[in-house]
Amino acid sequence: MKKIIIDTDPGIDDGMAIQLALHSPELDILGLTTIFGNASVNITTDNAMRLLEIADRTNIPVCKGTDKPLKRPFAGGVPQVHGEDGKGNIEHPESKLKPDPRSAHEFMAEQIKSHPGRVTILAIGPLTNLALLLQEYPGIEELVEEIVIMGGNAFCPGNATPAAEANILSDPEAADIVLGANWKVHMIGLDVTHKVLMTSEQLDRIANTESPLNQYVSTTFHFYRDFFKKVDQIDGIYVHDSTAVVYVLKRALFETKDFPVKVETTNSISLGKTWPSMGESDHEDGNELLPWKNRPKVTISVDVDANTVLQLIEERLH
Amino acid sequence: MKKIIIDTDPGIDDGMAIQLALHSPELDILGLTTIFGNASVNITTDNAMRLLEIADRTNIPVCKGTDKPLKRPFAGGVPQVHGEDGKGNIEHPESKLKPDPRSAHEFMAEQIKSHPGRVTILAIGPLTNLALLLQEYPGIEELVEEIVIMGGNAFCPGNATPAAEANILSDPEAADIVLGANWKVHMIGLDVTHKVLMTSEQLDRIANTESPLNQYVSTTFHFYRDFFKKVDQIDGIYVHDSTAVVYVLKRALFETKDFPVKVETTNSISLGKTWPSMGESDHEDGNELLPWKNRPKVTISVDVDANTVLQLIEERLH
Repeated sequence: MKKIIIDTDPGIDDGMAIQLALHSPELDILGLTTIFGNASVNITTDNAMRLLEIADRTNIPVCKGTDKPLKRPFAGGVPQVHGEDGKGNIEHPESKLKPDPRSAHEFMAEQIKSHPGRVTILAIGPLTNLALLLQEYPGIEELVEEIVIMGGNAFCPGNATPAAEANILSDPEAADIVLGANWKVHMIGLDVTHKVLMTSEQLDRIANTESPLNQYVSTTFHFYRDFFKKVDQIDGIYVHDSTAVVYVLKRALFETKDFPVKVETTNSISLGKTWPSMGESDHEDGNELLPWKNRPKVTISVDVDANTVLQLIEERLH
Repeated sequence: MKKIIIDTDPGIDDGMAIQLALHSPELDILGLTTIFGNASVNITTDNAMRLLEIADRTNIPVCKGTDKPLKRPFAGGVPQVHGEDGKGNIEHPESKLKPDPRSAHEFMAEQIKSHPGRVTILAIGPLTNLALLLQEYPGIEELVEEIVIMGGNAFCPGNATPAAEANILSDPEAADIVLGANWKVHMIGLDVTHKVLMTSEQLDRIANTESPLNQYVSTTFHFYRDFFKKVDQIDGIYVHDSTAVVYVLKRALFETKDFPVKVETTNSISLGKTWPSMGESDHEDGNELLPWKNRPKVTISVDVDANTVLQLIEERLH
């Protein structure tokens, strides 16, 4: 079994991703760590606990992470996409659980040291907790098996701005640290997640199963579906975060390319863009590529067998 | 016949583009205007005159343009791609012609006013002359038929840096002015020109015709071919500028999409990136899209029938 920590900001599609992970016997979920993003960290932490409660998996600890980006204020979440409550503005009581006393990055460090080389961190929110882990535990990067992130856009437009994907834009400085650290990072960005569109029919089939968690998560999806219908004129949803879970489970469904990546951190219309350097520049030895020099290669997903990904998600969510 | 001014920085592939235009009976070439870029404006102006001299078309005026970007120093050309002389480091005497006394943008304004609504400007170098035209002749944009530029990268990586295409990067402030002005701009960028690869066999066939201009231009190509062989491991060349000429001649070979475009002008790793706004953002009414608001739509070439483009170029160059 693969030991995994899910760093998350539920968030509606985070809910499906967590549900999918809980239904995957290949995964030994050591804990959920939470982060601001789709909503405040107080809300995302409560939502994470709520999901475990409904799934009856309260043995999994939930460790609360940071409430703001490294160098910027918290932007306030995306209530137009995920609702004010991060779960589609549904009437739902707060969780009865309490978060674990350890902070997100403290918990990560402890688990990584306990299982050297065997812990995968799946980060499906802003990357601030991971940046804090690197900053506060020097050398920890060498003990991690791998980092899988949902975030970024290598060769396609953004979704939060024309340049940037939402998770990276939420903390570009943290993302630049995480993508430049000396550990193995796999980037599941919009290049592939914008190809994985779950249709309304498929969502309805999942909603109509008997699992209480399915029914809960499906309820949260109404708001999210309405948003995509209005803005993107699509009848269904991109399952960004679940696609990253599938990457952990079935890597062969993805085509990848390895390039060093820099994140734009200068305040500008390009803020938050993830720039791969393909080394194709006219000036390979020149100043133009210096920012990418000596950075490790990130494994970027560039294509995906979307139908099989969607099938797998549906099969697991029963 | 289409009245056209070619604003150019020859430059090796500029040479083929000019040659192609001279061989196109559909075009009434009003003049060549020159610009710094592949080399200094003194060199590019001499190279432009040399091309007309060899082609025996010295009735076409050559008007010298500006020697530097609007707000930045001239970066010094790209001798590693185009040679120190902008023509592949060949031993070749200077042209005996003299440039027209009018400056590039002065000449453009005069021609546009003489033929209102009937002049196309094909700009295959940095866009500084066009920005000066807009700044010094307010309202002139309404009298131009259209602007066709070779430059930018909408949905693909750059070539001068991971973010930017060389012509746009050479003067991002000018490019942002030109792409935001109220005239019709067609952008032929790397999205299509990196699909139009002329093979060495095809270049050799063109070299072996009897035209003195073909023979001259083919000589300049040796250096350029060697560069691409070394850096991109390809046996042939991207005919960026000639592809833009073909767009003027046979628009049906291109697939286009219309979006407003902003150019990154902030000093950063993204400098010179052309950002289309597809209006797909999560926050269509929010601050994120304000920079694109009220900008006209640029017609961006996103795909091309490359084989037919290459055939057409070869047919014309005899």
